[in-house]
Amino acid sequence: MEVLFTFDMKKHQEQGLVMKFPEVTFQFNKKPEDIEIQTASIIVTYGGDVDVALLDKAKALEWIMVASAGVEKMPLAEIAERNIVMSNVRGIHKTPMAESVLAHILSLQRSLPLIDERQRSKEWNRKVGSIELKGSTALILGPGAIGSEIGRLLQAFGVTTIGCNRSGRASESMDETIKFEALIERVGIADFVISVLPSTPETKGLLTEGHFKAMKDNAVFMNFGRGDLFAEPILIDALKSNEIRHAVLDVFETEPLPADNELWLLANCTISPHVSSLSGKYVERALTIFEENLGKWQQGERDLLNLIDMELGY
Amino acid sequence: MEVLFTFDMKKHQEQGLVMKFPEVTFQFNKKPEDIEIQTASIIVTYGGDVDVALLDKAKALEWIMVASAGVEKMPLAEIAERNIVMSNVRGIHKTPMAESVLAHILSLQRSLPLIDERQRSKEWNRKVGSIELKGSTALILGPGAIGSEIGRLLQAFGVTTIGCNRSGRASESMDETIKFEALIERVGIADFVISVLPSTPETKGLLTEGHFKAMKDNAVFMNFGRGDLFAEPILIDALKSNEIRHAVLDVFETEPLPADNELWLLANCTISPHVSSLSGKYVERALTIFEENLGKWQQGERDLLNLIDMELGY
Repeated sequence: MEVLFTFDMKKHQEQGLVMKFPEVTFQFNKKPEDIEIQTASIIVTYGGDVDVALLDKAKALEWIMVASAGVEKMPLAEIAERNIVMSNVRGIHKTPMAESVLAHILSLQRSLPLIDERQRSKEWNRKVGSIELKGSTALILGPGAIGSEIGRLLQAFGVTTIGCNRSGRASESMDETIKFEALIERVGIADFVISVLPSTPETKGLLTEGHFKAMKDNAVFMNFGRGDLFAEPILIDALKSNEIRHAVLDVFETEPLPADNELWLLANCTISPHVSSLSGKYVERALTIFEENLGKWQQGERDLLNLIDMELGY
Repeated sequence: MEVLFTFDMKKHQEQGLVMKFPEVTFQFNKKPEDIEIQTASIIVTYGGDVDVALLDKAKALEWIMVASAGVEKMPLAEIAERNIVMSNVRGIHKTPMAESVLAHILSLQRSLPLIDERQRSKEWNRKVGSIELKGSTALILGPGAIGSEIGRLLQAFGVTTIGCNRSGRASESMDETIKFEALIERVGIADFVISVLPSTPETKGLLTEGHFKAMKDNAVFMNFGRGDLFAEPILIDALKSNEIRHAVLDVFETEPLPADNELWLLANCTISPHVSSLSGKYVERALTIFEENLGKWQQGERDLLNLIDMELGY
């Protein structure tokens, strides 16, 4: 069995795999054009290098392990057609992402950007307008592994949590869960509207002008899912006309965010360059999931952790 | 019974008191030089205006309700001598202060100051060095109402909490509690050293050069208690020589912090101008405590909430 990694890892991580799986041949840090692609039955990748050309070369490929969360840019139909299974590392982002979301929320409530600005001009000024997070309401679009972790932490701060998903099925750490269709009626009760939705045909353009107009004047909107959840001009208008208080964006329609994009300069918009999931523990956690799955695979089991439903796209 | 407030409140708050206590005569928004001081049996104050001159004039005074937490600048001996009881609003700061402490901690872990700095120069740069809060250890000096609330929230993030107080008696939301004397041996295990200690003879100068040297190189020190916990030059040296990673200070030896104080300019020091306890809900909560105590007082009960031990000074 040949396993090929298209990314680089630390030596001790490579050695760990070799020791734990003596019967497996590992190819580390390979490129799609390398000849070893032809014989690998398992490819471990961040996802961006998997295209039809690679699939055509990888004749022995049975399983693609994607060491990231979003697979919307991958050729899902072609992968499915070839009966290749795909799994990802869903959930390993939950700790750093939930911490980032809480960091931004608390920073805004407790006036940290203003405190920082005043320090730069050595200004001692106690009028900072800080408010409490406790007692507020958050609406979480996508209450899955990450969304529920955000909900759990918000509840510890005394925040009411409302999940919002396709089915309206109850979700962990949500005081209530509503369907996408109910969003327009209910979004007006939220102090924080937080999306961690993946990009799927159903979530693209889910938020319209009407949703932003229905939000509270002092609502904070946070997008930590995917940049195609709404058309950016809609949000820019909402921010410029102060229809909402603030936006915190970790994802964008185009990344890197072009220098001429107006969002960079809006005082009520925080630009986080797609870093909320970063953590020194990323590869370590991805390997833990991969090792468990590789063990199953060796035993002939095919009920892998985090299998991707190729039709739903997540 | 005459109750005199030395500060201003909102009309509806004044009316609420008048309606709830029809037998009490209220004097709102008075100054220490006003004649009504002479006949008031209860004074409600932020504390700064209570001096010996006021005590000499306030012949009918039996109870001072201090609508703040720190009473170290008040003439405690003279108040005790006159058999005047004193109570404060201990605990009402716990929500905003704990939220502020968590805001600063998460902001540092998740690189918010760096993200903000890069946005100002429109720089998209994903190398931010974010780390996780989860799995770290916090040492909390003063695990009382505020310290335990900080501990409770930190535990929700998967942080190990160690309280540190005079007696070493177990405290709420602390995985362990140690005595002041054990601090020097144990401070080296903490990623965060957080003080919310009041100023008392025992806490003044509690932290010495040795304590800062014993801290981890990447420890974050936070002082949200009182500025006399250590001599400022000790901390300035520790920060300049990178003995610790960062300091967040909400209290100082001299407030406002003088413009020529070196702390303003240190990149690894955050200057919060004594604002961590601020919240739009402050007076409302102080009144809730006062009303409960005033009800007791009317019934002749003297076991008020938040009585201050005049010897301990808190």
